[in-house]
Amino acid sequence: MQERLILVTNDDGWNAKGLQAAIEVAKPFGRVVAVAPETTQSGMSQAITMYRPLFLKKRREEEGVTVYSFSGTPVDCVKMAFDHLLREERIDLVLSGINHGSNSAVNVLYSGTMGAAIEGSFYGCPAIGLSLTDHDLDADFDAAIRYGRRIVERLLASGVELPCCLNVNVPVGRPEALRGIRLCRQNRGYWREEFFRREDPHGREYFWLTGEFVNAEPEAEDTDEWALAHGYVSVVPVQVDLTDYGKFGRLSFD
Amino acid sequence: MQERLILVTNDDGWNAKGLQAAIEVAKPFGRVVAVAPETTQSGMSQAITMYRPLFLKKRREEEGVTVYSFSGTPVDCVKMAFDHLLREERIDLVLSGINHGSNSAVNVLYSGTMGAAIEGSFYGCPAIGLSLTDHDLDADFDAAIRYGRRIVERLLASGVELPCCLNVNVPVGRPEALRGIRLCRQNRGYWREEFFRREDPHGREYFWLTGEFVNAEPEAEDTDEWALAHGYVSVVPVQVDLTDYGKFGRLSFD
Repeated sequence: MQERLILVTNDDGWNAKGLQAAIEVAKPFGRVVAVAPETTQSGMSQAITMYRPLFLKKRREEEGVTVYSFSGTPVDCVKMAFDHLLREERIDLVLSGINHGSNSAVNVLYSGTMGAAIEGSFYGCPAIGLSLTDHDLDADFDAAIRYGRRIVERLLASGVELPCCLNVNVPVGRPEALRGIRLCRQNRGYWREEFFRREDPHGREYFWLTGEFVNAEPEAEDTDEWALAHGYVSVVPVQVDLTDYGKFGRLSFD
Repeated sequence: MQERLILVTNDDGWNAKGLQAAIEVAKPFGRVVAVAPETTQSGMSQAITMYRPLFLKKRREEEGVTVYSFSGTPVDCVKMAFDHLLREERIDLVLSGINHGSNSAVNVLYSGTMGAAIEGSFYGCPAIGLSLTDHDLDADFDAAIRYGRRIVERLLASGVELPCCLNVNVPVGRPEALRGIRLCRQNRGYWREEFFRREDPHGREYFWLTGEFVNAEPEAEDTDEWALAHGYVSVVPVQVDLTDYGKFGRLSFD
């Protein structure tokens, strides 16, 4: 059997601790090529770069692992890998992360990590976005690595129908303290923002965006938010047909 | 009855022709406040700005219309309007556009126009992303304005259950040449990229992202792509629970 090829990317940038953690997750399963943003791309969603050129740099190479930076968004990195850099090869899995911070609930929409995972799933291989609910630059990734490997192993062995994209979130804690893995649906909720207003030295007002997540269904036990709040790793399978089929028959424009 | 308040935004920037066209759509229905990006934000998806401050500027004011620019993404603009600028008021509709270029099919994921519309729908009012399938800066918006008004009118009168977000695309053509409005589902398809490779004066290689849309179901008559290709205005109701419920029972991680 040919060795597997795993594409690793993230949104925190090629030199984030979480990228190295994702490489650790992937290494036991095959050869790893990482193409990750040159700079922090948190909150970049599924954004693509339309109006400037993008620079690719090989950053390091070691046994079974090559790391590139690319000066665009996480989605740009995935496109660069599939449509140029690894065009002649077959990629068996896309692993995006390990993100510094949660991508549960509606965060899936804003997340650059999940943007890249979703993009990966468009290329005919399974994709995982893997996040740790800890924004600390020096977070402890042990549990995320251990559970990440278990999920990769089960996913690759499952023969699940494609496209298949998983949004995996790991709560803070040592691996032995976590209670296991739960397959969940995306929690309903939203962010409400508070804008910190300041003035610059020229008297121009400016704002810092800062928000708070409002969980619209804290009691629902089948959601990712519930799983995380109760010490479980959450796995939400993700698809991208956004059509609101429930609205057919209720709208008419004739 | 109190006058309606309509928030207009876009991703092409506050001085794009399409923003003025969206204001023309909105004006007959009430007072208009536009908060639009300072610079082009095409392809910015649902991105938010996390690591820099954002500047708000009033750009112009006329009878019933006020236009602001905000130095962030389309989603930032919506958040600024609801959570700060118009916090004390009730917004009755969010209208994002008129976009210079199609947001049908999977483009809904990459589109800053649709990112803003989706964000608007999180605030308890109906939202519309309105696009014209013509990238020309000086495109003819007559048909998009006429059909946009019809859709706004029907939507506001419908009493449809919230959240409600519509992805509306208008094909190129004079209003009288279009065949009407079709309620559609999102077409399945994807982009494949070609990277134009160049070298800068220092010998560093760089890439321009350029792609081609692959329609995976050109014959399906219930999709937005089919409607547009056959001279109809497409309306896709959009929701954001990305959970792939079809995968439950087919995946297990125990």
